[in-house]
Amino acid sequence: MSGNPSAASVPGVLGAAEEPGEMHALVERLYPLCRSITGDGVRRTLEIISAEVPLEVREVPTGTPVLDWTVPKEWNIRDAYVKDASGRRVIDFNACNLHVVGYSVPVAAVLPLAQLRERLHTLPDQPDLIPYRTSYYAETWGFCLSANALAALPDGDYEVRIDSTLADGHLTYGEHVVPGQVEDEVLVSCHVCHPSLANDNLAAIAVATRLARRLAAGTDGAGGGRPWYTYRFLFAPGTIGAITWLARNRDRVERVRHGLVLACAGDRGSLTYKRSRRGDAPIDRVAQYVLRSSGRPHTVVDFSPYGYDERQYCSPGFNLGVGSLTRTPYGGYPEYHTSGDNPDFVTEEAMRDTLDACWEIMRILDRDRRYVNLSPYGEPQLGRRGLYDSLGGRSDTKQAQMAMLWVLNLSDGEHGLLDIAERSGLPFDLVADAARALCDATLLEPVKQW
Amino acid sequence: MSGNPSAASVPGVLGAAEEPGEMHALVERLYPLCRSITGDGVRRTLEIISAEVPLEVREVPTGTPVLDWTVPKEWNIRDAYVKDASGRRVIDFNACNLHVVGYSVPVAAVLPLAQLRERLHTLPDQPDLIPYRTSYYAETWGFCLSANALAALPDGDYEVRIDSTLADGHLTYGEHVVPGQVEDEVLVSCHVCHPSLANDNLAAIAVATRLARRLAAGTDGAGGGRPWYTYRFLFAPGTIGAITWLARNRDRVERVRHGLVLACAGDRGSLTYKRSRRGDAPIDRVAQYVLRSSGRPHTVVDFSPYGYDERQYCSPGFNLGVGSLTRTPYGGYPEYHTSGDNPDFVTEEAMRDTLDACWEIMRILDRDRRYVNLSPYGEPQLGRRGLYDSLGGRSDTKQAQMAMLWVLNLSDGEHGLLDIAERSGLPFDLVADAARALCDATLLEPVKQW
Amino acid sequence: MSGNPSAASVPGVLGAAEEPGEMHALVERLYPLCRSITGDGVRRTLEIISAEVPLEVREVPTGTPVLDWTVPKEWNIRDAYVKDASGRRVIDFNACNLHVVGYSVPVAAVLPLAQLRERLHTLPDQPDLIPYRTSYYAETWGFCLSANALAALPDGDYEVRIDSTLADGHLTYGEHVVPGQVEDEVLVSCHVCHPSLANDNLAAIAVATRLARRLAAGTDGAGGGRPWYTYRFLFAPGTIGAITWLARNRDRVERVRHGLVLACAGDRGSLTYKRSRRGDAPIDRVAQYVLRSSGRPHTVVDFSPYGYDERQYCSPGFNLGVGSLTRTPYGGYPEYHTSGDNPDFVTEEAMRDTLDACWEIMRILDRDRRYVNLSPYGEPQLGRRGLYDSLGGRSDTKQAQMAMLWVLNLSDGEHGLLDIAERSGLPFDLVADAARALCDATLLEPVKQW
Repeated sequence: MSGNPSAASVPGVLGAAEEPGEMHALVERLYPLCRSITGDGVRRTLEIISAEVPLEVREVPTGTPVLDWTVPKEWNIRDAYVKDASGRRVIDFNACNLHVVGYSVPVAAVLPLAQLRERLHTLPDQPDLIPYRTSYYAETWGFCLSANALAALPDGDYEVRIDSTLADGHLTYGEHVVPGQVEDEVLVSCHVCHPSLANDNLAAIAVATRLARRLAAGTDGAGGGRPWYTYRFLFAPGTIGAITWLARNRDRVERVRHGLVLACAGDRGSLTYKRSRRGDAPIDRVAQYVLRSSGRPHTVVDFSPYGYDERQYCSPGFNLGVGSLTRTPYGGYPEYHTSGDNPDFVTEEAMRDTLDACWEIMRILDRDRRYVNLSPYGEPQLGRRGLYDSLGGRSDTKQAQMAMLWVLNLSDGEHGLLDIAERSGLPFDLVADAARALCDATLLEPVKQW
Repeated sequence: MSGNPSAASVPGVLGAAEEPGEMHALVERLYPLCRSITGDGVRRTLEIISAEVPLEVREVPTGTPVLDWTVPKEWNIRDAYVKDASGRRVIDFNACNLHVVGYSVPVAAVLPLAQLRERLHTLPDQPDLIPYRTSYYAETWGFCLSANALAALPDGDYEVRIDSTLADGHLTYGEHVVPGQVEDEVLVSCHVCHPSLANDNLAAIAVATRLARRLAAGTDGAGGGRPWYTYRFLFAPGTIGAITWLARNRDRVERVRHGLVLACAGDRGSLTYKRSRRGDAPIDRVAQYVLRSSGRPHTVVDFSPYGYDERQYCSPGFNLGVGSLTRTPYGGYPEYHTSGDNPDFVTEEAMRDTLDACWEIMRILDRDRRYVNLSPYGEPQLGRRGLYDSLGGRSDTKQAQMAMLWVLNLSDGEHGLLDIAERSGLPFDLVADAARALCDATLLEPVKQW
Repeated sequence: MSGNPSAASVPGVLGAAEEPGEMHALVERLYPLCRSITGDGVRRTLEIISAEVPLEVREVPTGTPVLDWTVPKEWNIRDAYVKDASGRRVIDFNACNLHVVGYSVPVAAVLPLAQLRERLHTLPDQPDLIPYRTSYYAETWGFCLSANALAALPDGDYEVRIDSTLADGHLTYGEHVVPGQVEDEVLVSCHVCHPSLANDNLAAIAVATRLARRLAAGTDGAGGGRPWYTYRFLFAPGTIGAITWLARNRDRVERVRHGLVLACAGDRGSLTYKRSRRGDAPIDRVAQYVLRSSGRPHTVVDFSPYGYDERQYCSPGFNLGVGSLTRTPYGGYPEYHTSGDNPDFVTEEAMRDTLDACWEIMRILDRDRRYVNLSPYGEPQLGRRGLYDSLGGRSDTKQAQMAMLWVLNLSDGEHGLLDIAERSGLPFDLVADAARALCDATLLEPVKQW
């Protein structure tokens, strides 16, 4: 692995040059929208994403049964506030959409502070920050504010107003597909249901758009080609969105060979890979190989049935080979689910590093394959075929020859290129190049069923 | 695991309150009897045990073929001594039954000291202690005494007398059964063939009686129920007793799913678990889990074909999932097989700790089971079923919810509750409670064949 | 394992007493010959080996297809030199055969130094040493000399002469077979294609001859018997020789159960065992057991498709259980492939140690076998069969009894004697003796298909 490729040198990035700061700019553009698991905030978010990579947007009606769940009512909100006796907005949805508990039902009332308090959520240990709260499946309402702001409220009556609607409508999600050479799919999934929270999950959305554009140009470095797999990018509300997609794609699920849930992709922490439930799925091996061989500080953790939508993809009925890549994981930073998770909390550099890791993972996943040595009895005579020279122009000629010997020796249909790279200690790209040269010399061929 | 439960708080201990000191009192009551592999000492021992837990006592005639062996003649002894010239008993069976070599044939003779010496066994390195010796299968006689006592004997003639009989009779053993909900059995086996030795094996006998009484009230903490398995307690002479039981129960052996040989259960050392020959039998996993998760200092050792009756249960033809639990193992303490292994050598506290460990092992073994998630595609919606509240009164609500998610995720028919407890790091009881709640909600059902 | 047996005490060494220094003497006798992958140097080498152990010598014509290769032309050389203007031989084949690039075509010319230089090979970092170079498959010519010697050459014209022939002929190799009780074979393979290089590979040739002589007397210590396996010693040119043997013995290859490539057997470094491609072949387990249990400092490395003829035996089509034993491995010492690898570089002591390790490996490999306990239900009564006494004369009686218990317990047809030795921690010989005693008592029998 050759460190983090800069945008300019990334193989396969054609006609989609990555500009400095563009991912962060996308985060900033998405940040003000009030997203939830349904509603216009999600629709507007998908529109903005569509400008980066084209999306097919799906609308699923309220009440639709999806696996063990039902698509809920659609929630929209126009305004919300708490006014003091002087008419001043002491809590104002327009200042920060975290102020309203997600899915709050409409309310218009005047309440004394003591009674209002029961509807107010704060973080006493982080008195400057506004918490993020929702109540999707129990109808209620409430406001969130900083503990300091609450402490500053004098006794007295307050006018409370939430101008929201909770009514039959739709659940909305979007899909972007990068066509491949085969119908087998790699699923990349990001949740789009959180309002003004940057790391959770706008950073991952930004990374996913760039990953899709890189993949569109192929993964073999030759430029212009399609990738091997078909790559499906899913931008959907957490839990209910993934469940809805799974429910509506029961046939397609069988084509999902690998997958990655992307979240918390922009904070300053190092990368964390969470294994699939299977624990030894190809994506697990590749992700670990990439993180380890790139020399990045990183953490790998076992699957647990808590976190993001890997919970659904890795439920025992589906049990897909889907891992999860984050920087600091779920709940692991103090700004998590607070107003502290704002655009300042995420950096272009961190998103770029996440993107590069994803790209390296996909490039290997896409090219890893098993081969069969067609001359398996003794070593074939490479010199006669000019294979000692075929890569001779490279400064790593000796390594290239070793790579050919390793590929020939282990290509018995049981070992893939990643196996060979790991066992030999040679870079994956060199091993893949050796396999291509040996195929060209008809000493090797890919196994039919990979 | 919540440390060592005190007797009062032990789930399932109904109507059989454990009194302080009662196990040690039982050891003291059994200690004076002269046991061997046959004879009235064993019969009297089984009578005393019967007062604690009812036994079915079996008598197997001398000469009965049992596997590769034959039931030997029955040995009984009434008196034995060596008198000096003045008629004083310088070695007296009545003072300590270790003085006579087990299975000594009758003798009445007068011998000079030089000749007598050939029949005397001492421990030169432990000059105060009387050794324990037997000669079951080669007819001979002898006495054991302390090296100091031997040194004090003047030259001269001595009158030797052993008033024993070695004749056709029976081999005697006892069984106590705690009925379960299924016919599959757990075997708990203690040897009862050693004369006045407290740790080897009266302490284990005392522990086994209390374990049987706890099990009789069920293992699920609900009280009053039967345990899942049928528990068979075998009190039998070492080697030949276990072989006789195996020979007479060839059909029943197939029902023995798990087992534990109990020995050396009362010394002040920490617990040692010796794995079954299979090495990964359920009892092996459970015992290690209990010892590790309870925080007890302990040792786990691999099976070896030497020790107690696990040698027979784990012979390759049977290869049962039978481990062995001791404190300091066989031969590992200087008092082993000497008069130093007396009631002062064992403590109530140590026997209680052994009992608690056995109880924790059996409680988990009895409840460990595989389940199938009946809603395996995506997560089922727990909130709709009130399952977030079902355990809400507990202070560990969050852990209880995690336990439900883990049970749902791993219940694919391949993972049992202990697997889930180990993988999640959650306490077994919490995992078992979650499984019960999910079964009640018809989200889960046990696999048919466990 | 009882350390390194001296020659005198080696079991099975009958009528073939090993004299001090004799292996080194053989190295010295073989050292001056100019070997290559074909030619009279190999033939003369095989003649000398034949005086130690009888060989069947094979001649395979140039042009014969062998697997993916073709037997090359035969190369012979009579003289070669570079003379300065005064007629003095400044490079002289007769002084050291490394001076000529192996397989050099004939040449007779006068060249100025500048032009000659292009044909000269030196080692600038080791200026006193002459390198070893060959060009088997590209027709060319050249000379090798020390960097110091080259530096001393004045400008001017030089007369160059290589009196060689490269023409149709044969490839020559030799085989020595030690007949066994079964047709299954153990292959011991040494390359014989290097000219004046002592460690690479004359030392291994010397070791192989002594190993063959030891094996001829059997491996069970009883003397006079045949070993179990048939042992085939192959003395052949590297790569093309092994490939030729494999091509001509496609049927026999299936009989090769185990094998060892011997090389670099005489330097002062410690032993290195390189695993077969399979990684867990019996030879791998035995070699590691011998090296570990003998207390020798040693290294074990995984298979890689580079090194000596294990590359061919472990190609994926054959995938034989063939490991490689060296002292300092291929390329791991500065004298490698230089004139520094001369008879002073290897010692009798080191060759003896390699020989002893080989012998210990073969003795265990030859006797390792699985047995079935014929009395598997409970322990058989050993005392009744006199088995407690059968080995009673030995000081290690207690260990011998433990060995019998272990053999009985684990002999379920799945565990071999080496398994039992490893699991019990008892010496292999003791375990093998116990198995023999139990077979004599009809308590044990070997499995049919081993």
